[in-house]
Amino acid sequence: MSDARPVFYVSDGTGITAETIGHSLLTQFTQQRFETDRIPFVDTPDRAREAAAIIRESSQRTGLRAIVVNTCVDEELSRILAESGALMMDVFAPFIAPLEEELGSQRQPRVGQAHGIVDFDTYHQRINAMNYALTHDDGMRVDYSDADLILVGVSRAGKTPTCVYLALHHGVRAANYPLTEEDLETDRLPAKLRPHKHKIFGLTIDPDRLHQIRQERRPNSRYAELSTCKSEVAAADVIFRTENIPVLSTTHASIEEISSRVLETLGINREMY
Amino acid sequence: MSDARPVFYVSDGTGITAETIGHSLLTQFTQQRFETDRIPFVDTPDRAREAAAIIRESSQRTGLRAIVVNTCVDEELSRILAESGALMMDVFAPFIAPLEEELGSQRQPRVGQAHGIVDFDTYHQRINAMNYALTHDDGMRVDYSDADLILVGVSRAGKTPTCVYLALHHGVRAANYPLTEEDLETDRLPAKLRPHKHKIFGLTIDPDRLHQIRQERRPNSRYAELSTCKSEVAAADVIFRTENIPVLSTTHASIEEISSRVLETLGINREMY
Repeated sequence: MSDARPVFYVSDGTGITAETIGHSLLTQFTQQRFETDRIPFVDTPDRAREAAAIIRESSQRTGLRAIVVNTCVDEELSRILAESGALMMDVFAPFIAPLEEELGSQRQPRVGQAHGIVDFDTYHQRINAMNYALTHDDGMRVDYSDADLILVGVSRAGKTPTCVYLALHHGVRAANYPLTEEDLETDRLPAKLRPHKHKIFGLTIDPDRLHQIRQERRPNSRYAELSTCKSEVAAADVIFRTENIPVLSTTHASIEEISSRVLETLGINREMY
Repeated sequence: MSDARPVFYVSDGTGITAETIGHSLLTQFTQQRFETDRIPFVDTPDRAREAAAIIRESSQRTGLRAIVVNTCVDEELSRILAESGALMMDVFAPFIAPLEEELGSQRQPRVGQAHGIVDFDTYHQRINAMNYALTHDDGMRVDYSDADLILVGVSRAGKTPTCVYLALHHGVRAANYPLTEEDLETDRLPAKLRPHKHKIFGLTIDPDRLHQIRQERRPNSRYAELSTCKSEVAAADVIFRTENIPVLSTTHASIEEISSRVLETLGINREMY
């Protein structure tokens, strides 16, 4: 069996941009095997030479020319990296000239800024939003007036990971209300949620999948039983339908997809970090 | 004052790749004002026509030609979007031909896959890692043997957000040990951490900044006093130095930067999601 093709995400910052676009590109070549590695914080000629040596060595070891997805803004560093002999994919290169022409101004290359703290207030908002998500995760807080949105669903439907993602990447204050047995006995939203209906989004899930997830958490409990999962999900779906609440199934959706749908549906436009 | 230039991140999936590269590009043009918006899940000609109408309208409203950062893989959809008259920046276009040539195979365009659940086991690992981070956040768990890494530092030094980020984006099981007053009275690691020294990373922070953060949390408490912050940070730094533990200051570093440094230092190579 042949080796996997070496791929390097090289950056003067965290490497997140390089890895994001690189990953998106590689998923379009499903027949190929890749061995990926990141080399972040390449911000001096010495670091670039070290990186080039690692890249060159990987090509020699595998007999396959390495691929470098590069977001270094300093052209001198990119030139040193290219001496590794790898296929260079400079992520920004194709777009800078058209942008400069359209905007009528030159770019100001700033090293490693895309995922650094450029704007302290915005960064602070993200961290505060995350603390908010972690402390509004139990349905016990009665006051949802400072929430940007509230995810509602049965236990383990995917609310917490989605709230944390929304906080981290969009600075959104996302609260989380787990529907209790008592809540599920009626077909209406719990009273404390009703005033906030305009910012509520429902998460549902396939009962078989929910059963699997709950089994891992509390094996052979009544909580995890398939019949419990079925009746809880059905009761939650009745609430969402009766109250006309937008709803999404998390069974086959990633937290990125859920988050994107939630923001779009509730009309919340926030930059992504 | 002139309007901000409209920018749209358009995608057949979540739009995360488009927004990531678009944001990185725009941060290089600091003199310009941009008004950004995402249009995700553009996966049919009808959705593309709707998007094109929104884009065209924004150019007319502002008198500034809109910029579209586009990751739709279907060329027909990109063509419809281009009818909006915007400056089109097709993120994948410049890289597909060189990659196809290098790999000797054609891409298999798959709509919206970059941030979907492509590999269920990997996705499950991320979610489990996040639950792990949220339940190993108090230093009370004695068993760290199943942690991939342990962040150690005084309260509010940035451990929790970093652990959650590492879990969400790298599927890393990151535990978190807050140094207590008792721990800080000695200059050694707490006994329960010593067997895991190889996977420990220390976070430090400027005492003035720590004081600010703690003041927001518990105003005018002994916990938040500047003198408390100074002595705690100094004592933690002694432990890190004595035990030869790698350490990073979080004062000016984003969680993305901290995470990237931690993984690099501990030699953990995981794909990013």
